[in-house]
Amino acid sequence: MKKSFGAKTLIVPAPAWCVGTYDRDGKPNVMTIAWGGICCSKPPCVTISLRKATYSFDAIMERKAFTLSVPSEAHVRETDYFGMASGRNVDKFKETGLTPVRSEVVDAPYVGEFPMVLECGVIHHYEIGLHTHFVGEIKDVKVEEALLNGEGKPDIEKIRPIVFSPEVRKYHGVGSFLGNAFEKGKELGAPLK
Amino acid sequence: MKKSFGAKTLIVPAPAWCVGTYDRDGKPNVMTIAWGGICCSKPPCVTISLRKATYSFDAIMERKAFTLSVPSEAHVRETDYFGMASGRNVDKFKETGLTPVRSEVVDAPYVGEFPMVLECGVIHHYEIGLHTHFVGEIKDVKVEEALLNGEGKPDIEKIRPIVFSPEVRKYHGVGSFLGNAFEKGKELGAPLK
Repeated sequence: MKKSFGAKTLIVPAPAWCVGTYDRDGKPNVMTIAWGGICCSKPPCVTISLRKATYSFDAIMERKAFTLSVPSEAHVRETDYFGMASGRNVDKFKETGLTPVRSEVVDAPYVGEFPMVLECGVIHHYEIGLHTHFVGEIKDVKVEEALLNGEGKPDIEKIRPIVFSPEVRKYHGVGSFLGNAFEKGKELGAPLK
Repeated sequence: MKKSFGAKTLIVPAPAWCVGTYDRDGKPNVMTIAWGGICCSKPPCVTISLRKATYSFDAIMERKAFTLSVPSEAHVRETDYFGMASGRNVDKFKETGLTPVRSEVVDAPYVGEFPMVLECGVIHHYEIGLHTHFVGEIKDVKVEEALLNGEGKPDIEKIRPIVFSPEVRKYHGVGSFLGNAFEKGKELGAPLK
């Protein structure tokens, strides 16, 4: 039996990603979001949704750029802080002691200590309701070299990103390996892909 | 030191969600996606991105509705299968033995055996590139009663959703609890939220 919860933003897993921007004066800012995801393969694009009231909103509208830093579970406190404090009132990098690194690809900073970063230029934005939906074209992805697997690819078990549960407001880590995509399905007779 | 990977859809964590639709003849279909996420709180909306070539694309365009069934790690094989086979060639519900349940809220079916479902009506769609981006307004969320926590809310540790790693193409489970959102940040002096 399923229980009905009504019209809610209730789904798992959601990400916890940190949006990096420069404000009008060039001060770096960073804000944690859970409303986002990849939205296109060619060109490679990611979406993030922000309320107009956020300090990051104006920065993105002005510079048409942002980064997404992927925090590791070692930085869950800082990640949560970035979602609670506002860059309007504080310098979140200074308060946490983390390092704003200027992207060489887009006009935005990222969190130097976080293991993975996407550097994005805004190509669309859409008004949906409370949130505005930004589509960022991914110009580059950078990952800490120590966190690559034997094939030189990013290893989620080393990156250890954070999983967010909306509404219940909890953070979890990533668990055990379940199988390779586009392989498990063959056990049920799926075509090669 | 960070290694540069170029312009790629490389980010973690991504979800593995199953999009349920009826085709023109009323045959239920289901397709696994990783390109999606919540995009607005009011109205509550979720986005999914599909290639035009998919069988589900036409179904969504025609009926302006879809469901998102959240698979549990117990169904990782079926989840992968749903992303490999096409509803143009097979009846994926019949092939896997899973049950298409007709939504009473939108004109689409969901996977009865999966622990969580979002029922969505399409309110926008945008062409981005290879993928078309659909914004679905969430009309209802249903969760298996046995998987609620002591407060009657969905418990990710019981739902056990699947985390997908794009490009490296791996599935992982959800790991250990890291802390409560909007609480951990207070340790760094964040304001109450």
